[in-house]
Amino acid sequence: MRTSKFLPLFVIVIGWFAICAHAQTASSRKTARANEAEVRQVLERWAKAFRARDLDGIMSVYAPGDAVIGYDLAPPLQYRGNAAYRKDYADFLAQYNGPIDFESRDVRIVAGEDVAFYHALERMRGTLKSGEKSDMWIRATSCLKKIHGRWLIVHDHLSVPADFETGKAAMDLKP
Amino acid sequence: MRTSKFLPLFVIVIGWFAICAHAQTASSRKTARANEAEVRQVLERWAKAFRARDLDGIMSVYAPGDAVIGYDLAPPLQYRGNAAYRKDYADFLAQYNGPIDFESRDVRIVAGEDVAFYHALERMRGTLKSGEKSDMWIRATSCLKKIHGRWLIVHDHLSVPADFETGKAAMDLKP
Repeated sequence: MRTSKFLPLFVIVIGWFAICAHAQTASSRKTARANEAEVRQVLERWAKAFRARDLDGIMSVYAPGDAVIGYDLAPPLQYRGNAAYRKDYADFLAQYNGPIDFESRDVRIVAGEDVAFYHALERMRGTLKSGEKSDMWIRATSCLKKIHGRWLIVHDHLSVPADFETGKAAMDLKP
Repeated sequence: MRTSKFLPLFVIVIGWFAICAHAQTASSRKTARANEAEVRQVLERWAKAFRARDLDGIMSVYAPGDAVIGYDLAPPLQYRGNAAYRKDYADFLAQYNGPIDFESRDVRIVAGEDVAFYHALERMRGTLKSGEKSDMWIRATSCLKKIHGRWLIVHDHLSVPADFETGKAAMDLKP
């Protein structure tokens, strides 16, 4: 029978598809782990630069141009674009003398193929230019995109809760 | 020549791979658009339920169990798990009489294969149980995961900025 000649080839082709499908699943799982590790590295680079008050190092993990939208601790409601957010960081860092101590808790990183997010409680401690010590726990959320193969932050949201009874910002909360 | 018999089959197999590769690229672009549309629908469902103060409707867009971590407007620093966040929502909604007016501005939705995020400035207006009118612009970030084929929110971050000069929560900012 003529078709019997093709049978081994059909088996090979079907086997090939099965191998490809399995490899794709395994590779997507591997990619997810690799992406999470890459995002973690980006955030570790940020933390290192932040502790050292290294503005260029900090900004190297943010997307260029208009992609960055930052909701920061202090007003205004939002910063639009890399340049505006850089200026905000510069103003913040200028308030401190020496390095800023940074630690994080309850960290979660979720990374897909090209979209990821991070959130954590973060403690920032340092000495202000006035000599006053500053020590505060905040909530931090960062959203990232893989742009031309590089994970970059396109959105930050940093805050302390608002006490609606007193109208005050709750700057002395501890996790 | 024996191999020439297989040539048409080889051409078909290679052609098949080419078609698959092309279809995959086109489908991943289509999937990205479809995912963004699905995430938008989730947030529209949330907004509709929120306006109607429909707690079950609100919670239907959140992941079950421990997956939800909420950073809300008021203390504490975080709510852990769906049940705790549901109680927080219930307490919030109980402060209002009648529907809550909701609008959003500067909305951005970024959706990958199975991870997505949303952020926007949101205005909430309503009448409190005390009779007092409440009208406030806040910053909102939501992070979503596609879980068993459904987009669900696993993280919220809601806040107003903190005025470090006065120590007050900046509840009267406008975009």
